[in-house]
Amino acid sequence: MYYIGVIGSGECDTSSLRMAEEVGAEIARRGAILVCGGGGGVMEAASRGAGNAGGTAIGILSGDDHQEGNDCLTYAVATGMGEARNAIIARTIDGAIAIDGEYGTLSEIALTMKMGKPVVGIHTWNLDSPGGEERKIIHCDTPAEAIETLYRLLGECNR
Amino acid sequence: MYYIGVIGSGECDTSSLRMAEEVGAEIARRGAILVCGGGGGVMEAASRGAGNAGGTAIGILSGDDHQEGNDCLTYAVATGMGEARNAIIARTIDGAIAIDGEYGTLSEIALTMKMGKPVVGIHTWNLDSPGGEERKIIHCDTPAEAIETLYRLLGECNR
Amino acid sequence: MYYIGVIGSGECDTSSLRMAEEVGAEIARRGAILVCGGGGGVMEAASRGAGNAGGTAIGILSGDDHQEGNDCLTYAVATGMGEARNAIIARTIDGAIAIDGEYGTLSEIALTMKMGKPVVGIHTWNLDSPGGEERKIIHCDTPAEAIETLYRLLGECNR
Amino acid sequence: MYYIGVIGSGECDTSSLRMAEEVGAEIARRGAILVCGGGGGVMEAASRGAGNAGGTAIGILSGDDHQEGNDCLTYAVATGMGEARNAIIARTIDGAIAIDGEYGTLSEIALTMKMGKPVVGIHTWNLDSPGGEERKIIHCDTPAEAIETLYRLLGECNR
Repeated sequence: MYYIGVIGSGECDTSSLRMAEEVGAEIARRGAILVCGGGGGVMEAASRGAGNAGGTAIGILSGDDHQEGNDCLTYAVATGMGEARNAIIARTIDGAIAIDGEYGTLSEIALTMKMGKPVVGIHTWNLDSPGGEERKIIHCDTPAEAIETLYRLLGECNR
Repeated sequence: MYYIGVIGSGECDTSSLRMAEEVGAEIARRGAILVCGGGGGVMEAASRGAGNAGGTAIGILSGDDHQEGNDCLTYAVATGMGEARNAIIARTIDGAIAIDGEYGTLSEIALTMKMGKPVVGIHTWNLDSPGGEERKIIHCDTPAEAIETLYRLLGECNR
Repeated sequence: MYYIGVIGSGECDTSSLRMAEEVGAEIARRGAILVCGGGGGVMEAASRGAGNAGGTAIGILSGDDHQEGNDCLTYAVATGMGEARNAIIARTIDGAIAIDGEYGTLSEIALTMKMGKPVVGIHTWNLDSPGGEERKIIHCDTPAEAIETLYRLLGECNR
Repeated sequence: MYYIGVIGSGECDTSSLRMAEEVGAEIARRGAILVCGGGGGVMEAASRGAGNAGGTAIGILSGDDHQEGNDCLTYAVATGMGEARNAIIARTIDGAIAIDGEYGTLSEIALTMKMGKPVVGIHTWNLDSPGGEERKIIHCDTPAEAIETLYRLLGECNR
């Protein structure tokens, strides 16, 4: 079963929220587990989408209390580690969809890529590496396209 | 909803395994989430008990891969942090039941107590503090007694 | 060069403080690096002892700011990870001397032992394991005896 | 006293190595502490520069053993946390100079920026945020210019 991260800003515009919710719903429909940082914005919208579609949303929280995640999470893990929890998200997931995002999201993109896992972006950071890395994040325009692309990258069949 | 940790050895005798399985089952029956380190022994037995009783077992793994937890976990978070994951378990849970255990378990008992959360023990470490701390782990003889005691400590009603 | 942890309470009586300061001084005299949690009490006294003897005291802080350690540290690393930093202390050191201590100290003792490294205690936790582990912390009465014992356990010559 | 991070690839060309060594030396000359991930490439070159100029280089290692850092470190902290140690580097430092770099470096840039600390880059990632963040990394061409710029950003006088 795939664990798919949805990473993005805790605050964002309604267009990003709509896309996050649709991404979360599609993850649930495909039988994967959604993993996020458990905050607001993109994280909450994606969790809502997953929950409404009958799926599971796990929040890996920066804070100290499992009850402090957004209301749409199915389960929450409280790391008490601040931004270091971004590495735990990257470690746990098989791949990620990044939507919008600020520096926290950028760190999650980078950590996930560093661990050799695919990242698909919707309206997110454009990155130009000094060394011209072969592996890049793939940019898509819609949730459907993003999920389709991520699943292609993850392999033809669920492991 | 309570998150209850079951902490104990990755390898132990059948008596401890039986008690861990019964503790896991009782956690599930009471509608709480079981949290453990995701390994074998006490962790696996408790997860099996929770699963068989229709509950949820979340493993917070020391390793790098969410697939490396025991087969009885419902969900797994891969921290990639080795023993530091013990602090995440202690942070996430509302209280713990310790069964048997070696130094890893002792660290989880200590971290959970440090965070001011109750720990009930079954055939586990006896601790004699230099300062004579007021708060101590409570020793019980059976799973039923241990769960009853932990719930009393957690408060009369679920939050 | 050895990295030696001094672990103990952030608040303790003057007898423990005196012993911690002497332990810190002796670590410095032997050319080892003192590592501690960077707080007050035993940690500060040991750091003062090391500094006054011309040695180096590194604090691995639970908090967010390298300036928040005690004033006797030579250097500080800010983990921002709360109690999870105890695992980093245990990971970094070659062995530890525990003086007095509450549950935080107990977790450091347990994590250090779990990692297979020696721990020598002065007026600290007495532990009675369920399984009767072979490896135990060694209790000593004086700083000189504790250091001597730890060095014996670490091997006859510095690496 | 400032703690300044030097972040960059474990493997890079000789031009980057030369710049890293000069950056490390300049950090030492200004009386600051150099902090890095303790690996090879940019990290080792910067540590060498700091050491040769009479300064201190602290490595915050991803691995389990304080002896596994590069040979030019003055001190090493072993986190045993893999990439999560990047968050500890970002937490510990007051600001960073990024040289060259791959995804690990990008995560350190992002985490440092997320924490509100300045990052100056030499031949490193170009970033184009979706939201057009005000705070950006500042690109410089030479070590001297980079250090000068970082110190200006850190404030006119050392705290």
